[in-house]
Amino acid sequence: MKAAVLYSGGKDSSLMATILDKFGYDVELITINFGLFDSSIPAAKSAKNLGFKHKVITLNREILDDAVDMIIEDNFPNNGINYIHHQAIEYVAAQYDVIADGTRREDRIPKLTMSEIQSLEDRLDVQYLNLTGIGYKTVNDISDEIFELEKKESDIYNSSDYEMEVRVLLKQKGCSIDEIFPQHIQSKVIGWKIK
Amino acid sequence: MKAAVLYSGGKDSSLMATILDKFGYDVELITINFGLFDSSIPAAKSAKNLGFKHKVITLNREILDDAVDMIIEDNFPNNGINYIHHQAIEYVAAQYDVIADGTRREDRIPKLTMSEIQSLEDRLDVQYLNLTGIGYKTVNDISDEIFELEKKESDIYNSSDYEMEVRVLLKQKGCSIDEIFPQHIQSKVIGWKIK
Repeated sequence: MKAAVLYSGGKDSSLMATILDKFGYDVELITINFGLFDSSIPAAKSAKNLGFKHKVITLNREILDDAVDMIIEDNFPNNGINYIHHQAIEYVAAQYDVIADGTRREDRIPKLTMSEIQSLEDRLDVQYLNLTGIGYKTVNDISDEIFELEKKESDIYNSSDYEMEVRVLLKQKGCSIDEIFPQHIQSKVIGWKIK
Repeated sequence: MKAAVLYSGGKDSSLMATILDKFGYDVELITINFGLFDSSIPAAKSAKNLGFKHKVITLNREILDDAVDMIIEDNFPNNGINYIHHQAIEYVAAQYDVIADGTRREDRIPKLTMSEIQSLEDRLDVQYLNLTGIGYKTVNDISDEIFELEKKESDIYNSSDYEMEVRVLLKQKGCSIDEIFPQHIQSKVIGWKIK
């Protein structure tokens, strides 16, 4: 059975894809873009190195605009990023029987609530799964064991998170980015250690 | 790394064990007993057929007595079963670095809350995981794909759920069991279809 995994090239979404692959799903990694800046390249590279199929899906630019408006109003990224994730899930879920993302137990956003998941599955006749049953220590242990990882300060050239096009648009609008998105070290999957 | 999985011989705990096994953990399946009636035999058979190590851990009989008192008072099994599960997790977690169970997304009980999980992990320096990220349809699809399953009305001779010793004790106390535990069809794992 085909399974779409929303994919950033990070270890969480790579692990979710690996679990589905190990159980025989035909995994397609999906990276979302809005046509403003091609932030999908790092994810495409990770996907290629892992040997997974990879697609870039371009969503309506208005979603990005609305998310950035929310982020400017809140002076905080959470609601805007969560909005993008929900729109992405809705769009992709309509095209697959199984959809997954790399949300871990501790993640606050982007995250679907229990009732959002039930609504999604019922309305779109889809199965949704994520890593909510697993904590960050276990995800890290497994990822360190199976993936070659590269740890770097994330920037628009090495990450495919939703955040990257948001940063580009905030900059175009003359907003200070560092206040909204403090610098952080990011683990990118660059290949298998053990498959 | 060693990982203990609380194990009933059902598909949920078998799937949790399989995921950990696929990622290189040294899996030990643990079935809980209270020394009243040896309900661990079905789980031991399933474990043997899957090729996993299996241990029976006998917990203090008072835990079962207290659980059954709760169930009689409530005339409903949930609090008592949940109490047993929490006691089992606490006991086993103290002896392992990683502990898991087969709780799925829809399960209400037995279930650890987010704050119970955090408390457990912090106090006992353990990593806990379960199948909360996965819904029953996906668990069923994967289980049907990889396990040979036997579907039968559950009774004390074909299931190792906590419920079985509870039923035996309720019967000893002259309580009506069918009202508290309505008959239900149970899927037991009897071997691999595809490993």
